[in-house]
Amino acid sequence: MTIYTDYLWFQTRERQEFIRITDEIAAIVKTSGVKEGMVLVSAMHITSGVFVNDWEDGLIHDFQVWLEKLAPQGLDYAHRQTGEDNADAHIKRQVMGREVVVAITAGKLDFGTWEQIFYGEFDGRRKKRVLVKIIGE
Amino acid sequence: MTIYTDYLWFQTRERQEFIRITDEIAAIVKTSGVKEGMVLVSAMHITSGVFVNDWEDGLIHDFQVWLEKLAPQGLDYAHRQTGEDNADAHIKRQVMGREVVVAITAGKLDFGTWEQIFYGEFDGRRKKRVLVKIIGE
Amino acid sequence: MTIYTDYLWFQTRERQEFIRITDEIAAIVKTSGVKEGMVLVSAMHITSGVFVNDWEDGLIHDFQVWLEKLAPQGLDYAHRQTGEDNADAHIKRQVMGREVVVAITAGKLDFGTWEQIFYGEFDGRRKKRVLVKIIGE
Repeated sequence: MTIYTDYLWFQTRERQEFIRITDEIAAIVKTSGVKEGMVLVSAMHITSGVFVNDWEDGLIHDFQVWLEKLAPQGLDYAHRQTGEDNADAHIKRQVMGREVVVAITAGKLDFGTWEQIFYGEFDGRRKKRVLVKIIGE
Repeated sequence: MTIYTDYLWFQTRERQEFIRITDEIAAIVKTSGVKEGMVLVSAMHITSGVFVNDWEDGLIHDFQVWLEKLAPQGLDYAHRQTGEDNADAHIKRQVMGREVVVAITAGKLDFGTWEQIFYGEFDGRRKKRVLVKIIGE
Repeated sequence: MTIYTDYLWFQTRERQEFIRITDEIAAIVKTSGVKEGMVLVSAMHITSGVFVNDWEDGLIHDFQVWLEKLAPQGLDYAHRQTGEDNADAHIKRQVMGREVVVAITAGKLDFGTWEQIFYGEFDGRRKKRVLVKIIGE
């Protein structure tokens, strides 16, 4: 049984950005030597997330417009009383998801044709981290 | 340590359908011989998902009405510029979830009384696949 | 390989409550003796969930206000025809999430600074259960 741990770092230029990380995760799986198992890919911050969806700029735009309507920035959130203006980012990340668990089969991410892993940043412009934990053999 | 992989195929008649798959997953767990561990059940497409909720027709209807209001089909999504009219399906699946991880205890899905696993289709009428990955002993 | 199972019980006073359970999960991880692996923390009911977000009362209030707007209690849901008045709770739990999978590294929950695990109750005032399943070595 092999258990392997790694971390990815991000510092986005924009407050909100979706970054494709499929290749980075595939490379870590390869390094781990695990042929059969699972990989957990998880944000380590509560205003960013990890999700699987489509690598298409129009759809990424649609998601961001939809999220802004669903949980707008700048409303009079109670969280603001702590001095934080990122309540919307906490909510957006919750909708998109904190983590994904992806199967590893025959040494590769066992993905359908269009599945891509994304880091979803909702309150960026500072260093943030994603955890990668692999379990298998 | 046992790692076991299987796939389920779906082709729905309707664009949107929720299909109960608890029995299929339980059967795969039995076949795997795993008594203690976890099973990952994951959509392999980005316009369908897997989730756990209630097997009750009224509630399934409520979810579908609610999702249609939340992310209506036919809006002027940017994704449409690629020729795709399924941006709403990408969003609906994200809200409902891509995957579930279910515990296996004493050879069975370790579920509460009302937990049922569903395949959630949001852009059907074509062949689609779900991955089942079991890890344990 | 170690696989360890435990359960937590909850009975909230309010219909909707968010309860921090990070310390309880950390204690179970310690008891399991697992140094490297993963822990699945999952609701066993379909009107409650488990999620990771911020331990800040204002933000918890913001989430609850936002969820009430997103899926209000007391609408004319079809689920009501079964005698159940908790369709909103099923939807709210789906948005917030059923389960989290957290990495265990060097014997501890491998968390960022602000990550906290919550039990999210959306139809409480009765006994409900959370499953904790640990896999690792």
